[in-house]
Amino acid sequence: MFNDVLAHKTAANLTELRNKKPLIHNITNFVVMNFTANALLAFGASPVMAHAPEEVEEMVSFAGALVLNMGTLTEPWVEAMLMAGKKANELGIPIVLDPVGAGATVFRTATAMKLTESLSISVIRGNASEVLSLAGEDSQTKGVDAVHGVDEAEGAAIALSQELGATLAITGAVDLVTDGNRVLRIFNGHEQMGNVTGTGCVATALTGAFLAVDGDSLEATATSLAAYGLAGEEAAVDSKGPGSFHPALLDALYHLDSDKLINKIKIKD
Amino acid sequence: MFNDVLAHKTAANLTELRNKKPLIHNITNFVVMNFTANALLAFGASPVMAHAPEEVEEMVSFAGALVLNMGTLTEPWVEAMLMAGKKANELGIPIVLDPVGAGATVFRTATAMKLTESLSISVIRGNASEVLSLAGEDSQTKGVDAVHGVDEAEGAAIALSQELGATLAITGAVDLVTDGNRVLRIFNGHEQMGNVTGTGCVATALTGAFLAVDGDSLEATATSLAAYGLAGEEAAVDSKGPGSFHPALLDALYHLDSDKLINKIKIKD
Amino acid sequence: MFNDVLAHKTAANLTELRNKKPLIHNITNFVVMNFTANALLAFGASPVMAHAPEEVEEMVSFAGALVLNMGTLTEPWVEAMLMAGKKANELGIPIVLDPVGAGATVFRTATAMKLTESLSISVIRGNASEVLSLAGEDSQTKGVDAVHGVDEAEGAAIALSQELGATLAITGAVDLVTDGNRVLRIFNGHEQMGNVTGTGCVATALTGAFLAVDGDSLEATATSLAAYGLAGEEAAVDSKGPGSFHPALLDALYHLDSDKLINKIKIKD
Repeated sequence: MFNDVLAHKTAANLTELRNKKPLIHNITNFVVMNFTANALLAFGASPVMAHAPEEVEEMVSFAGALVLNMGTLTEPWVEAMLMAGKKANELGIPIVLDPVGAGATVFRTATAMKLTESLSISVIRGNASEVLSLAGEDSQTKGVDAVHGVDEAEGAAIALSQELGATLAITGAVDLVTDGNRVLRIFNGHEQMGNVTGTGCVATALTGAFLAVDGDSLEATATSLAAYGLAGEEAAVDSKGPGSFHPALLDALYHLDSDKLINKIKIKD
Repeated sequence: MFNDVLAHKTAANLTELRNKKPLIHNITNFVVMNFTANALLAFGASPVMAHAPEEVEEMVSFAGALVLNMGTLTEPWVEAMLMAGKKANELGIPIVLDPVGAGATVFRTATAMKLTESLSISVIRGNASEVLSLAGEDSQTKGVDAVHGVDEAEGAAIALSQELGATLAITGAVDLVTDGNRVLRIFNGHEQMGNVTGTGCVATALTGAFLAVDGDSLEATATSLAAYGLAGEEAAVDSKGPGSFHPALLDALYHLDSDKLINKIKIKD
Repeated sequence: MFNDVLAHKTAANLTELRNKKPLIHNITNFVVMNFTANALLAFGASPVMAHAPEEVEEMVSFAGALVLNMGTLTEPWVEAMLMAGKKANELGIPIVLDPVGAGATVFRTATAMKLTESLSISVIRGNASEVLSLAGEDSQTKGVDAVHGVDEAEGAAIALSQELGATLAITGAVDLVTDGNRVLRIFNGHEQMGNVTGTGCVATALTGAFLAVDGDSLEATATSLAAYGLAGEEAAVDSKGPGSFHPALLDALYHLDSDKLINKIKIKD
């Protein structure tokens, strides 16, 4: 029923990540920086946050992946993203983009467009509203929260994927990942993730971690989202609400291992 | 002994908040952004943090309330606050101001003055030292911590409330809320809240959430502070120190319900 | 075996800190601001974060110590550090520097050099790679993580200490602190601290707290690192992974007392 090959690949990716401990360069928002760094550490990567024009090109050159996140955006940060992104493209370092709040304001939507036009991006991960707005559809985003379901955005994701040559991931109750041809769905996850700020941003960062060890963007994305979703399921068992869910999620990421992944990953072709 | 009508109103406001899930636009400090977003989510609101001049006017126009917080302040953030605030005033969206560190430096005090003079603000929530300094009294603020008790600032709060046409809230062991005529005191709360950074900032943000659903600024403020204080009491039972108190407080906010509020809210006229 | 005098001094410093509750002015990075503020509060200090050129000189003049941290650095923050640092020097307020990521990029290394040349700094705390890079040795820093062991950097720390007239602290499995003559080693600590972002930054901030009450930089540094390490040991007992370790560490800092410190502090001459 679920794809067993991809369950094994999830385990292999995690093992590789923990062996290599690649540097993941994040240019991300103020709200989630701490959570993101801790999640990357717990997963097995080596996070760094750096946005100064003086150093982003140098920093990204040591990285296994570059994570661009549009939350709490201002113009100087967009410039830093473009500088780091161009260097990453030059060096063949994969980029993952989180278009936080695309569709909510003209500035966010325009920035997402500028980034996707100026850079070759491996993976874009957003909620359904953000993906619809990137596809130019008349969507709505309430601040940074989706008002559309994942399935509503499937067509837009496939079209956008083909247009941009990127893997598109829409996260929600069931996550959808597509490279324009293949469509994978991930059934791991827990609704409590929707009650904690930054869980989407962390999904994007962890995707960056797997991109650093898996050259297949589609599978790197699907396996990272599935592993993360499984951690969410385990965290829900160990917590009483969204507050205690947060540390429990980091604990669960840290305690992921091959056995759990092989047996509990739920990805469908 | 305690005001039963306001206990019921607290419950009604929470129910309304969770039904409407209004967007709360925060321009707040770096230290508390994550805590604030998570507290607003746990309470039932939809938080967004945005401070770019390119988008603050557009973002606030979708919001149920605007929260302005002066921690980690710089001049560009003051400009963003003024832009968002003027648009909020134009659209009749309530503003709540947290004058973090007013009285500690000339820059903070002057900024608080500029914001209160340039904008029509519904609620100002601070500690006693901050409120005294806003009233032009020769108060002291040690960094961002109060060195005065709530009762010392009652007169200043009433005078300031009348002068600015705003509700003034002073939080401390017992919280005081006044619209210049009526004075309410809130007896919910727990001393552990003083050992966690940003609990005051979160009080301000949650007041923004209730302002989005309750047109009476005085009662919106008193009921939000009381609900938050009750969550603090419950968190103290479930925690071992200020570290575990933080997630427990978010859990407790999430698990607030009408029954608890009606029975345990302690507001006095 | 362990230095009993320094164990007693650790207890005395903590008692003094909690009696005086000095303001600690931090100009630090976005990732760790919340954690740092909460750790300082739990330890017994009064933290403030402020970086605006309009107020840093005034704010630092009320402080017991100034903490400069180079994470998520940009040029305007360097300027703020220099302004605050010069005022601190003028007023005899001790400065502790955390050269986060020195060695990782030219910008970070150059900034660390500029700060140490322009300011009289009491204590520099970094990991082995950062300290080696400050000493001009051809070290490597992977983002913000060390790739060298503490002992490899002992010679560099002693030489740098003599050159700068500063106490140098290298944290790792065993921490090393030197004023160029005396070398102290701290055996408190727990490996889980390496799995949580910002634990190094917090070590620096807590050192600032003890510098505010202990005029002997070497001993203030060694005792703060030992007390913090002991809190880490206790947190490890109460946690299941790096996520729950974070709140447990704050709880443990809060519950440190003279008895524990006198009996469990492990500093060697």
